[in-house]
Amino acid sequence: MKKVGVAILGLGVVGGGTYKILTEHREEYKRTHKIDLVVENVLELRKERALALGVEESKIADNIAVICSNPEVDIVIEVMGGVEPAKTFVLAALNAGKSVVTSNKELYCKYSHELEKTAIKNHCGLFYEASCVGGVPVIRALLDNLQGNKILSLLGIINGTTNYILTKMSHEGASYAEVLKEAQKLGYAEADPTADVEGFDATYKLSILSSLAFHTKIPYTKIYREGITGITVKDIQYGKQMGYAIKLLAIGKNGDNGIEVRVHPAFIPVEHPLASVNDSYNAVYITGDSVEDVMLYGRGAGALPTGSAIVGDVIYCATHSNYRYSTFENTKDAAPGTKFIENFESAYYIRVNASNRTGVLAKITSIFSRCGINVAKMVQEDGSDSAAVPVIFVTHKTKEHSVNKAVEELKAIPEIAKVAAVIRVVS
Amino acid sequence: MKKVGVAILGLGVVGGGTYKILTEHREEYKRTHKIDLVVENVLELRKERALALGVEESKIADNIAVICSNPEVDIVIEVMGGVEPAKTFVLAALNAGKSVVTSNKELYCKYSHELEKTAIKNHCGLFYEASCVGGVPVIRALLDNLQGNKILSLLGIINGTTNYILTKMSHEGASYAEVLKEAQKLGYAEADPTADVEGFDATYKLSILSSLAFHTKIPYTKIYREGITGITVKDIQYGKQMGYAIKLLAIGKNGDNGIEVRVHPAFIPVEHPLASVNDSYNAVYITGDSVEDVMLYGRGAGALPTGSAIVGDVIYCATHSNYRYSTFENTKDAAPGTKFIENFESAYYIRVNASNRTGVLAKITSIFSRCGINVAKMVQEDGSDSAAVPVIFVTHKTKEHSVNKAVEELKAIPEIAKVAAVIRVVS
Repeated sequence: MKKVGVAILGLGVVGGGTYKILTEHREEYKRTHKIDLVVENVLELRKERALALGVEESKIADNIAVICSNPEVDIVIEVMGGVEPAKTFVLAALNAGKSVVTSNKELYCKYSHELEKTAIKNHCGLFYEASCVGGVPVIRALLDNLQGNKILSLLGIINGTTNYILTKMSHEGASYAEVLKEAQKLGYAEADPTADVEGFDATYKLSILSSLAFHTKIPYTKIYREGITGITVKDIQYGKQMGYAIKLLAIGKNGDNGIEVRVHPAFIPVEHPLASVNDSYNAVYITGDSVEDVMLYGRGAGALPTGSAIVGDVIYCATHSNYRYSTFENTKDAAPGTKFIENFESAYYIRVNASNRTGVLAKITSIFSRCGINVAKMVQEDGSDSAAVPVIFVTHKTKEHSVNKAVEELKAIPEIAKVAAVIRVVS
Repeated sequence: MKKVGVAILGLGVVGGGTYKILTEHREEYKRTHKIDLVVENVLELRKERALALGVEESKIADNIAVICSNPEVDIVIEVMGGVEPAKTFVLAALNAGKSVVTSNKELYCKYSHELEKTAIKNHCGLFYEASCVGGVPVIRALLDNLQGNKILSLLGIINGTTNYILTKMSHEGASYAEVLKEAQKLGYAEADPTADVEGFDATYKLSILSSLAFHTKIPYTKIYREGITGITVKDIQYGKQMGYAIKLLAIGKNGDNGIEVRVHPAFIPVEHPLASVNDSYNAVYITGDSVEDVMLYGRGAGALPTGSAIVGDVIYCATHSNYRYSTFENTKDAAPGTKFIENFESAYYIRVNASNRTGVLAKITSIFSRCGINVAKMVQEDGSDSAAVPVIFVTHKTKEHSVNKAVEELKAIPEIAKVAAVIRVVS
């Protein structure tokens, strides 16, 4: 029986889950995959954490050199997160001839060009299924199942924290601030929630997924990004009445005029399969020219679901020697000539607070008309003459820049107290 | 650039779609996968069909020997369906050293032990992603993503024809016979629909999927099977009122007491992600001990979606030389000692037509009680005293054999005109 040694860098939530899966299933993997997967080292400074998980003291390393020079280690699992020291450690492992399995979306997104070059040079595998959407097998689906398609679009709910927050706000009517606090208490959101709620985490994942889908490098810096901190319960409720659910969507499109990549909150029709992806569940909805629509759904985070993706990569790596790298020139920047569409098309939900006076509606609609925006729906709340009354417009598909222009003009009308919300509507 | 030659056996719906994908994307695959995928032969007796698709006359073969002896052919795509002559042709191709990609669920289900043995002997690849659930990447997910899990259960809507029929009956209130006729006209059902509507097709796929999921051979003959021909609009509507959708479910469970595999119509709660898988869409809902719940959703059939799965396998085969075979001893029969549970547990929907007379309810419930069945819900239609009035029971989880016994006893009561429906309820 082939013995395959692994080392785990970091015994945090995911590292701990991975350790548990590997050790508890060791006998099963001997039977099913004819390999003996042995955890030979863990890199963890909190020795007591490692001991509590059942790691033998002799296997606990406090520096990467121990692991790189251990001939028993074949595969290094990096689950530390963040760029440094993860990057230095992963490069060291690859240069020592170890294959690497990582869950680190930020590292892979920002430095895959460098990591991959090093992996190729050293004939090592570099696997990263766990970097996107936890246990949901989306990376391998793009690499090994849908690779014969031209992928036309990819719509994803790929951040668990924001989906948990938006679902709670939507179902319970609680405010963003309240739900965030609760999510932090439950461990669903970090003390500093910026990476999640401002959409950075989703842009890292979208960069990885859209590069694979479109066979060309999509740097995360090219992705339009807008977080969920401005979303109010009021708009969620208006949206509901109009048949929409609110989601932080990651969108990639590959059309005739170029590539469009963006992360922002969006209303989607309740009938769309993504609309019922709730709480910390995630999903990616992919449309290809042959496969038509495919949706992959599951737990986007968590110790064991993410551990499942890591162990899947480890077993694959241990039982295959042909590693596949990118299907495109994996450079830091986009390939010269790649066209990114910034002035993209979308429908829009626009809420203004306007004084309830005859004539204001005519002013607003004439602005829309001047900006080339067609209104699909309009709802005006009943209100007293003096107060600022919410008026909601849903537009037909229009250009982003036209909406930006219209919003500027709306702000200049004295009867409009506030342009209270602009939310894209995706169908 | 590596040139890889393929041959397509059969230019039916899926064969034609596959030919189209391969030829239209040829330049793209050179760029993305550094391979030149060339269709070197097609096996098709209807020469005009091949010519109409654009195949050069010199590439049209009328017997398998031409393809087996063509040194330019590396990979043979079998999309003929049925056992013979597909089986003979696939074995001939493998014995001639060609790798095989097949969409043939019946062939793979019934003879994978023989095909795989021949593939291993000849160091050839044998790929069958397209055999189950069209373009949905479920086989590779089980093999290469979720393989570190103990898969606990698998619930699938894996037959497009029956899902189309049940969705239409459910949404439009049309009868089974009417919808079947329409489906046949649209090409969604065959002239002889038996394989689909009686659940045979689903048992072939469940045999393949559950063998992979549970790492042990599950012959299709061990699968309990019940089709949809007895489902009435009346029961669908009662079910709807109770919050259920009707589906033909393929169920595999791997519990402490053994393995449970069955294909039958079932009510599932409308909130379940599978409940909104409609029309010819298919989905598989997998629960693993690490990954928790994962659902894979998409087109379960059709020329291009199935072609997408075939071409995915072809590209993988062309770019890898490590082929993986079964993770279990792939014999014809189940491994000795495998325990299959026949007296499985489920909740049940039972509709009887009873005379609306005092005392009949007491008789029924005492039968349930005697058989150890707990009733969860009861609905009795208002009706005249003399007529046979529908009375519906939904039970708590109980044993299949207890329900069979109760149904026999119910039939013997003179006040019961008919036990009109027994449908399992799955949650």
